Amino acid sequence: MRIALLLEYNGKDFCGSQSQKNLRTVQSVLEEALAIYFRLAKSTKTKKPLRAIFSGRTDSGVHAAGQVAHFELPKEMAKDWLNIDPQAFAWSVNGILPTDICIRQAALVPADFHARFKAIERHYIYRILNRPQRSPSRQDSHYFLRTPLDIEAMKEAVACLPGVHDFSAFKSSNSDKASPIIEVKYAKLLNLGEGELEFIIAADHFVYNMIRIIVGTLIEIGLKKRPADSLKAALIGAQRKLAGPTAPALGLSLVSVKYPEPYINIFKLANFNDQVDKRNEEILSEY
Amino acid sequence: MRIALLLEYNGKDFCGSQSQKNLRTVQSVLEEALAIYFRLAKSTKTKKPLRAIFSGRTDSGVHAAGQVAHFELPKEMAKDWLNIDPQAFAWSVNGILPTDICIRQAALVPADFHARFKAIERHYIYRILNRPQRSPSRQDSHYFLRTPLDIEAMKEAVACLPGVHDFSAFKSSNSDKASPIIEVKYAKLLNLGEGELEFIIAADHFVYNMIRIIVGTLIEIGLKKRPADSLKAALIGAQRKLAGPTAPALGLSLVSVKYPEPYINIFKLANFNDQVDKRNEEILSEY
Repeated sequence: MRIALLLEYNGKDFCGSQSQKNLRTVQSVLEEALAIYFRLAKSTKTKKPLRAIFSGRTDSGVHAAGQVAHFELPKEMAKDWLNIDPQAFAWSVNGILPTDICIRQAALVPADFHARFKAIERHYIYRILNRPQRSPSRQDSHYFLRTPLDIEAMKEAVACLPGVHDFSAFKSSNSDKASPIIEVKYAKLLNLGEGELEFIIAADHFVYNMIRIIVGTLIEIGLKKRPADSLKAALIGAQRKLAGPTAPALGLSLVSVKYPEPYINIFKLANFNDQVDKRNEEILSEY
Repeated sequence: MRIALLLEYNGKDFCGSQSQKNLRTVQSVLEEALAIYFRLAKSTKTKKPLRAIFSGRTDSGVHAAGQVAHFELPKEMAKDWLNIDPQAFAWSVNGILPTDICIRQAALVPADFHARFKAIERHYIYRILNRPQRSPSRQDSHYFLRTPLDIEAMKEAVACLPGVHDFSAFKSSNSDKASPIIEVKYAKLLNLGEGELEFIIAADHFVYNMIRIIVGTLIEIGLKKRPADSLKAALIGAQRKLAGPTAPALGLSLVSVKYPEPYINIFKLANFNDQVDKRNEEILSEY
């Protein structure tokens, strides 16, 4: 019996999503709460701990509004799931979890669902605050830069990203073995005013630190340390040294993960584009 | 010599804006930082402490993105101001201030400027999160309600607010002596999707707890505990008992304060409406 979870977390106090010995990670905190819920605490000698499999790893400090994970519930525990409404299950586990993480939704999924291998698209937002003075309310969610950025140059650079490209220049040297040939389905830089910028990117997959290196390059373009066409030049050159530095983790958030039919509606949530449309529609109609 | 300050703060750990003995308030924390900056620490027996005068009081827990305050700098200290760029002054004081408050801008203003008495309009946003599960990233900024709200009924109710009305039903009994006859210049409920709601209101002034009581009434309408026209009925009836409960402070934020000519551009910032227009324009052009 396989259960999928839609997770939100503030990455600030987590050492990334993936379990690491003696570190506080999203996976270990989640697995511990599930173990308590299903009475699989280590002190009982009965069962193996539940393993949560994530759609992908988020680095230390990276946030998530729509991370997806799944876990396999042994047959003998199936009644623990079937006796409870999925929403009530989420409430119960959220009562065990600390306040910097929560299960937004839980759902029974087909046995062949896999949070990582079935994912076809991932959406991220990187948030920047570009104004003279720091912001008390955005210090954990935005990369703060006080030097004025040339936003038009950054937008010009972003325009080359959509499509299929080799992102070898945009992966850390200690990268995973994922293919650097990536289809970027959406990439835009939004200027929300008052110094707030959002870099939104969606792709079939990402290589290690890719978004943070793209943002680091964009920021150098914004600072006029490099020309707007140097992002495209780095794509074509495909060498790490052609791109800029890795921007800090705290600005990055995994917004949503997309799955194909028949898993597309497992959480019965509006998908990313619907949300954006909703925001447009409301702002348009109200002002 | 009069200096105006544009302030941002996270209200969570402040006992409101106004100085109170032995409590951590925005005013006392700001005055202490200014005193340190101007070497007016109490241990020196030379000068009286600087007094910061705010555009209006914010309650314990209420945030501000654009609070305005001013203080009078004694003549003998004028050179301390004139020798430094206003932006550098803000940086210096921000280096003294704790991270939950900052000066966004500082400006020399005419001697007759007064943060409170010259203000002609105040803009607030009350943020609500209406979804089944709590949010780790919005627990200090949004009032979280898990019961689904009837947003259309709430919008219908809000429509009666703009214009000049008697808000006697929407002030706490221990209210200040401000007139309950108030001109509401703007009032809208925005549905930003995924359960995020923003109630935006602008008025010439507000009576004590007015926005929180309006929101408390709106939420009862959203919960179908009272009809949509009961907000209007409370306005007309002008009795506190006709309105709903006071919503919690944490959802409320003072967004901006408007001043007439010749003070209108003291901070050379885009005003509230320009910001909203900017947001519209960007979202429209980008998607």
